[in-house]
Amino acid sequence: MERIYATYYIETPVAVEKAAAVLAGEQSSGTFVSVPGETDELKERFAAKVERIEILDSVSEPAIPGLMGKGQYTRANVEISWSIENFGYNLPAMVSTLQGNLYEITQFTGLKLMDLEVPESFKQHFKGPSFGVEGTRKLTGVYDRPLIGTIIKPSVGLSPEQTASLVKTLIEAGIDFIKDDELLVSSANSKFENRVDAIMDIINRYADKTGKKVMYAFNISDEIDNMHRHYDKIVDSGGTAAMLSINSVGLSAAKKIFDRGQLSIHAHRNGWGMLNRHPLLGIEFPAYQKIWRLAGADQIHVNGIQNKFWETDDSVVKSIKSCQKPLLGGYSILPVLSSGQWGGQAPETYRRTQTTDLLYMAGGGILAHPDGPTGGVIALQQAWEGAVKGLNIAEMAQIYPEFGKSVEKFAK
Amino acid sequence: MERIYATYYIETPVAVEKAAAVLAGEQSSGTFVSVPGETDELKERFAAKVERIEILDSVSEPAIPGLMGKGQYTRANVEISWSIENFGYNLPAMVSTLQGNLYEITQFTGLKLMDLEVPESFKQHFKGPSFGVEGTRKLTGVYDRPLIGTIIKPSVGLSPEQTASLVKTLIEAGIDFIKDDELLVSSANSKFENRVDAIMDIINRYADKTGKKVMYAFNISDEIDNMHRHYDKIVDSGGTAAMLSINSVGLSAAKKIFDRGQLSIHAHRNGWGMLNRHPLLGIEFPAYQKIWRLAGADQIHVNGIQNKFWETDDSVVKSIKSCQKPLLGGYSILPVLSSGQWGGQAPETYRRTQTTDLLYMAGGGILAHPDGPTGGVIALQQAWEGAVKGLNIAEMAQIYPEFGKSVEKFAK
Repeated sequence: MERIYATYYIETPVAVEKAAAVLAGEQSSGTFVSVPGETDELKERFAAKVERIEILDSVSEPAIPGLMGKGQYTRANVEISWSIENFGYNLPAMVSTLQGNLYEITQFTGLKLMDLEVPESFKQHFKGPSFGVEGTRKLTGVYDRPLIGTIIKPSVGLSPEQTASLVKTLIEAGIDFIKDDELLVSSANSKFENRVDAIMDIINRYADKTGKKVMYAFNISDEIDNMHRHYDKIVDSGGTAAMLSINSVGLSAAKKIFDRGQLSIHAHRNGWGMLNRHPLLGIEFPAYQKIWRLAGADQIHVNGIQNKFWETDDSVVKSIKSCQKPLLGGYSILPVLSSGQWGGQAPETYRRTQTTDLLYMAGGGILAHPDGPTGGVIALQQAWEGAVKGLNIAEMAQIYPEFGKSVEKFAK
Repeated sequence: MERIYATYYIETPVAVEKAAAVLAGEQSSGTFVSVPGETDELKERFAAKVERIEILDSVSEPAIPGLMGKGQYTRANVEISWSIENFGYNLPAMVSTLQGNLYEITQFTGLKLMDLEVPESFKQHFKGPSFGVEGTRKLTGVYDRPLIGTIIKPSVGLSPEQTASLVKTLIEAGIDFIKDDELLVSSANSKFENRVDAIMDIINRYADKTGKKVMYAFNISDEIDNMHRHYDKIVDSGGTAAMLSINSVGLSAAKKIFDRGQLSIHAHRNGWGMLNRHPLLGIEFPAYQKIWRLAGADQIHVNGIQNKFWETDDSVVKSIKSCQKPLLGGYSILPVLSSGQWGGQAPETYRRTQTTDLLYMAGGGILAHPDGPTGGVIALQQAWEGAVKGLNIAEMAQIYPEFGKSVEKFAK
């Protein structure tokens, strides 16, 4: 029978073998005393198994306060497996099994889901991203370089007309992708429908004229009926994308939206810091992105090199690489780089990932360019041209005037 | 204009005033440089406001590793407010605003959402729990004492017939409530429909005979169409409750299910440890339960006194009390006590909460009672009778023989 494998980075005040056994027990048979009916055959078929233990270092203070233990806490990598028979092809049930009560087990003073492996048969049950990298490239007509994108700022407060006016400027500057901020769905002075009307009018007119249809990811994060209604509105208006705050909306409703397959879905991971920021609590991105690829997200946020947030470059690179790696031979997903990006990060991003299959987004980095948004978009295109050529920032600033002005404005 | 208020417990390497201003900026206007269109009027209307700062202690090591600061980290309570105009009556958008990118801000080495206050107008937009405490009591016919409940164990592996046989024993013992384990939705040898058929046959037959319909919360956590189908199956079979793993299913799909209003929904918070276990990361229960009450959960897990998990009794008591406090004058929700409960915790639970508006659940505590499940249920009823009378465990063990055997078996 096929099995699902999960790797955890753990810290425990007890013997690692014992802690791993408690985890496996809690997440399969799950009680603190033996009960009638818990036969050996039943255990053999449905019990989670400890597959591997790799003991690492010991520390004298727990990573997370617990009630147990004193003075010595062992860290380890632990692999646990479950039969697919336990929960079948049900992603929320898989999440409850791999990321459920186990975080509360007192035998752990730290526990993080690092990665997971799902069996081949998942291919028959999860169609995955409807567009992914290739489909999203096709919708935008951008090949052989990253899609260059931006976020409407200020996040909340612009009227539909003001937003459309900004969209017009950005389109004329050559942008490939624009998105609502995650804070905006439908505000008092920017009703969703009005915003779609105003923006798609500009996008469609430009597309009719030039053949280039800019992708705008409208934020539809909401209750499910509203999401469907807003999705319909985008489709009816000729739009090509929608955005979901996947953590806020949640897995079941997001999958329902993904499964419609008419729009490329931009998965925003806001709230991610809560799930990931502690080194010994929560989930790492390689595991997280697999769940969302199976569900069907086409584009997913990975932060960016030298971002304005807390995350290290190594972690961002690891996230991008996890998206590049095929899942069950496919399930292509486009990594979205964002947060404090202005083009200066392009050389390092390319050097470390060797890919242009990216959506590279800058907010202030485009809108606050000394030459205005037009200069901002050109500077980003130049940055990626130079990055792929292997140039460094100083060399690029010499060759490309708009990029040079970015350096003057944004380089620290 | 009405505002939404959120209180955070934070730790920062910079001045608290500055960190709070960054939080407010990031979660309303949200970029790192000023941009055209960000007028003063727009800021005044849509900017988040720092309402209150209460500086607490300082520490020399950050709670969570960050890239900024060295040697001194200040802890504080900070209150931030947003105009309802920013996102209207959209819970996922509210979550993205109150719990979105802010966890990633480098100016924080710790950030936890402690509580939130929503405006009166929310009453007109969120109907909240369809059953709550009174409705769930009515469905079960249990008044003036806690509902006594149990979880089917082993979690995964019993056939529908084996489960139904256990349900029969529990019903005959006088149980009020039974639930699937959160790990089980539809397993290889316990298909959802078959399980409902087998169990509801027993429940309905007993109800016809005695007038007491035991509430069984079938776990429907799944993709949304499957949840609807399984919900229908429960309703059609005469069931009165369903269970959702709310973190795994997510807010938008859960609300859709809550809104159907035909079943009392048992909200299981598995995965909660990931969101809460670190003292300076995530969300505290008083904030969490408000979001789920607004969405419409009828019953919600709060762990239990002297539980088998890591949580302190003080924290559990705070959670129970937060559920007891009316939200906007209503939105009644039934706290579910679970995890290592066997009746011995009843006196302390009652002493500290002074309520019997609880669903008090024991798994092994009932099923592994020396006299079998019958003795287990009786012992729990005795425990609560004694607790309300103000007796202690030793006194109760003298008076009540079944409870006395629980003490022998389970007391540590």
